[in-house]
Amino acid sequence: MRVNLDISADPTDYSFAHDIRVRFAETDAMGVMHHASYVAFLEETRVEYLRDLGRPYGELRAEGFDLAVLEVFVQYRASARFDDQVTVHTRVREMRGASFQMDYLLMLGEEICALGATMHGVVDARGRATRAPAWLKALLSGLPN
Amino acid sequence: MRVNLDISADPTDYSFAHDIRVRFAETDAMGVMHHASYVAFLEETRVEYLRDLGRPYGELRAEGFDLAVLEVFVQYRASARFDDQVTVHTRVREMRGASFQMDYLLMLGEEICALGATMHGVVDARGRATRAPAWLKALLSGLPN
Amino acid sequence: MRVNLDISADPTDYSFAHDIRVRFAETDAMGVMHHASYVAFLEETRVEYLRDLGRPYGELRAEGFDLAVLEVFVQYRASARFDDQVTVHTRVREMRGASFQMDYLLMLGEEICALGATMHGVVDARGRATRAPAWLKALLSGLPN
Amino acid sequence: MRVNLDISADPTDYSFAHDIRVRFAETDAMGVMHHASYVAFLEETRVEYLRDLGRPYGELRAEGFDLAVLEVFVQYRASARFDDQVTVHTRVREMRGASFQMDYLLMLGEEICALGATMHGVVDARGRATRAPAWLKALLSGLPN
Repeated sequence: MRVNLDISADPTDYSFAHDIRVRFAETDAMGVMHHASYVAFLEETRVEYLRDLGRPYGELRAEGFDLAVLEVFVQYRASARFDDQVTVHTRVREMRGASFQMDYLLMLGEEICALGATMHGVVDARGRATRAPAWLKALLSGLPN
Repeated sequence: MRVNLDISADPTDYSFAHDIRVRFAETDAMGVMHHASYVAFLEETRVEYLRDLGRPYGELRAEGFDLAVLEVFVQYRASARFDDQVTVHTRVREMRGASFQMDYLLMLGEEICALGATMHGVVDARGRATRAPAWLKALLSGLPN
Repeated sequence: MRVNLDISADPTDYSFAHDIRVRFAETDAMGVMHHASYVAFLEETRVEYLRDLGRPYGELRAEGFDLAVLEVFVQYRASARFDDQVTVHTRVREMRGASFQMDYLLMLGEEICALGATMHGVVDARGRATRAPAWLKALLSGLPN
Repeated sequence: MRVNLDISADPTDYSFAHDIRVRFAETDAMGVMHHASYVAFLEETRVEYLRDLGRPYGELRAEGFDLAVLEVFVQYRASARFDDQVTVHTRVREMRGASFQMDYLLMLGEEICALGATMHGVVDARGRATRAPAWLKALLSGLPN
């Protein structure tokens, strides 16, 4: 297991933030956002982060690369509910060879909603581990953490 | 619009039945199964129907065919809830060239849960409309409706 | 069956439009947006429409009302793909007693992606059909179609 | 963080196993099961485990208890694909007061598909942490790990 679970709860530690509203389809019979739905929020935020960096994910895929998810971790703190606006903060934690960790802090206003982390591997179109393209490596490693 | 909404509510009109339990992830904050989740139930039942016919869907895809969904219709009658076992009855309604309609009757015990219909087109690996392979055509057209 | 499938393909016939990007989680192994995911797009658009009208859905629920989905219909025209931005146009088609139909036109730029319709019933907190609150009735019936 | 990531990859360490087929709706444009879909597989398996123990989850909820998910972790090893049958092994790892960890081993035939863990808290109908009912405590603590 390589994911580092020591995730910052301080929004100022993060590089990028993205707002997502909770859909009704994402709630469950406990009246709150279902725990699996958070994983899609992390993904949407990664995609928006790459776009913000000027490198939309579709471009990466068009070049024959994919970012496979190797591990995912979420710690739930306060339940998001239907129509809540969740602010997802993210940053690249570290890059080692062809894999890297991203951390996430989900906020409901001033309240911590959840913490998360994902480990990714750069893979080619056939899903085999490969070296990150230079621009991605530079992009990810050059970010202030 | 080509889908025929006159769907039988009599289980004996159907060729095949498949049971699916409602997952907690499929419920919503109204305490019932979310209306979009029914669409996945129709799909799972189609797949099991093809398997039962001795032609698993993966085989169809391996031959370079796919069954694109052209239209979907669901009428909700009685709410399914978490852990309910829904019996999904299905049949091929009719086949015209490269497209065909399937009907669905979802039961909660003796109670009608929902009615549904899907229109499908046979497409090649690039998603273009194509003639159905002979075995599929025979399979679908030969079924007692 | 009460849903009227004669849905306008002209964006100027609609009252409201909302943009949604296709998440990677919403795609399938055919490389396109999965057909069930469209249903959540219709729902998100309804919610944004009510918000735009100054009556967020949460307010409706807080007053003890819900808008149950009685029927849903989608006709797929052109596949949306990962990261595509889909513009969902919507309008209230008609209101009869405690139920009403909404129509949807999903566009990918200038291309028609899908048409949709949903039938809704106003229900109380226990899920029983009830009269629409006056403000909702006025809101829905007063809209230019 | 309390989840223990040292998860056994040996099926004989587990108490219960449940088979789930990958739905087409659960795949993504990389041609494999989407990483968020695994979380629902863990949940379905928990539910079946409780049923197998003679205590269906609905009974727990009817008594006013819920099992909130506090943390979730998944490590992906080999991609499951459409129509694959995944065998999900599970066991209760440990119980401390009102919270407990469950471990999961997902197999594709003889191959390890994924490892997982969830931390749960026993909550009352309002979502507040509460003591586990006696039968649940006995049930969970008495299991051979």
